[in-house]
Amino acid sequence: MKELLYEGKAKRIYTTENEQIVLVEYKDSATAFNGEKKANITGKGRLNNEITSLLFLQLKEAGIDSHFIEQVSETEQLVKKVTIIPLETVVRNVAAGSFSKRLGVEEGKELTAPIVEFYLKNDELGDPLLTNDHILELNLATAEEIAVLREKALKINTVLLSFFDGLGIRLIDFKLEFGKDNQGQILLADEISPDTCRFWDKNTNEKLDKDVFRRDLGNLTDAYENILARLGGHQHV
Amino acid sequence: MKELLYEGKAKRIYTTENEQIVLVEYKDSATAFNGEKKANITGKGRLNNEITSLLFLQLKEAGIDSHFIEQVSETEQLVKKVTIIPLETVVRNVAAGSFSKRLGVEEGKELTAPIVEFYLKNDELGDPLLTNDHILELNLATAEEIAVLREKALKINTVLLSFFDGLGIRLIDFKLEFGKDNQGQILLADEISPDTCRFWDKNTNEKLDKDVFRRDLGNLTDAYENILARLGGHQHV
Repeated sequence: MKELLYEGKAKRIYTTENEQIVLVEYKDSATAFNGEKKANITGKGRLNNEITSLLFLQLKEAGIDSHFIEQVSETEQLVKKVTIIPLETVVRNVAAGSFSKRLGVEEGKELTAPIVEFYLKNDELGDPLLTNDHILELNLATAEEIAVLREKALKINTVLLSFFDGLGIRLIDFKLEFGKDNQGQILLADEISPDTCRFWDKNTNEKLDKDVFRRDLGNLTDAYENILARLGGHQHV
Repeated sequence: MKELLYEGKAKRIYTTENEQIVLVEYKDSATAFNGEKKANITGKGRLNNEITSLLFLQLKEAGIDSHFIEQVSETEQLVKKVTIIPLETVVRNVAAGSFSKRLGVEEGKELTAPIVEFYLKNDELGDPLLTNDHILELNLATAEEIAVLREKALKINTVLLSFFDGLGIRLIDFKLEFGKDNQGQILLADEISPDTCRFWDKNTNEKLDKDVFRRDLGNLTDAYENILARLGGHQHV
């Protein structure tokens, strides 16, 4: 008996027969600007499910565990049940998006070193940027856990940067979410897809991610199919 | 020959005969919300000059050096010439203002521990909050300097908290600016006044600071005179 546990903007989470495992269904909805811009885009759920599954497998090969167990259909995957830490962990290699706008740094500027940022996962407050002091005050994580999140995020960045470089893609920035399993272990969770990463073509700097939707730059599924194709996944042409 | 070196929203800086010393003149202008709300308030310059002078002397007695040399008139003080580090260092003891609004924490909530925040001093960008990674990327300070700023800010907080408590005033939060002298030493600079601090009466929680102006809560000079009186300074009644 699969029972809906949670429905977010891009995914539904269902129970399974195993209490420690949940089913994630990727939806076809696209949202941006904290839900202000919305659309239904046929095929997006499948693309993000396939891309996330391939990336979690890739990370596993590099020794980075995640909640991912297996892809079970075009739009569904089984994952370990975790309690999501309400922080969005962002890693940036190149200035873009809100970083450029907030700090007045030209989009496209290579950063001296990767930057890790934490945002409060709270739509009502518009996901505000947090410092370590804020995270401690709000009891979102301990100082040790912040250090673990940061270290994992940077390790994931190293693996993904090199992996995408081999596919002719610049990994500009990306957002991660982490959860705790029933042993209290911190595991990478949520998704890694063109919804949560900025991918630019290495030669043309063409955007192959959700900015296509945010900024009306063309067809979202074409961009996402491009990423999936380079990853060697199932394409629908 | 005194020559205008710089004019800000609240102060003018002039040269003196000594190259290492500048004259600060406090203006009667009040501004809030990044300059969107403005007024001329007679007596404000004098009040902030007197209050800042008394507080810098108080800090000096507690072993905390600043750029302050001496008050030379009702609205003027002599200070060591420093190069201002373009960071606003904020210390918070109690949730209020932008902290409460951004993070959804009720105004008035005592924080578990004092919080130090850094903001980019840039009106055009609206003084955005910075993490340590941002400060390093923007070359605003080194990791060592960030640690020094943080340590100095917390030490100043300890001294001021206890000092104001003795005067029946809760020090809710405050903003500091630091500069470097010609030896590269980091010195507390700018001002410490009801323009840059939140002061609440210990018994009534009456606001005795710039929030009176920001939120139209009454007469600003009455509030500032109240602070000056408790500090034992010259009053004009």
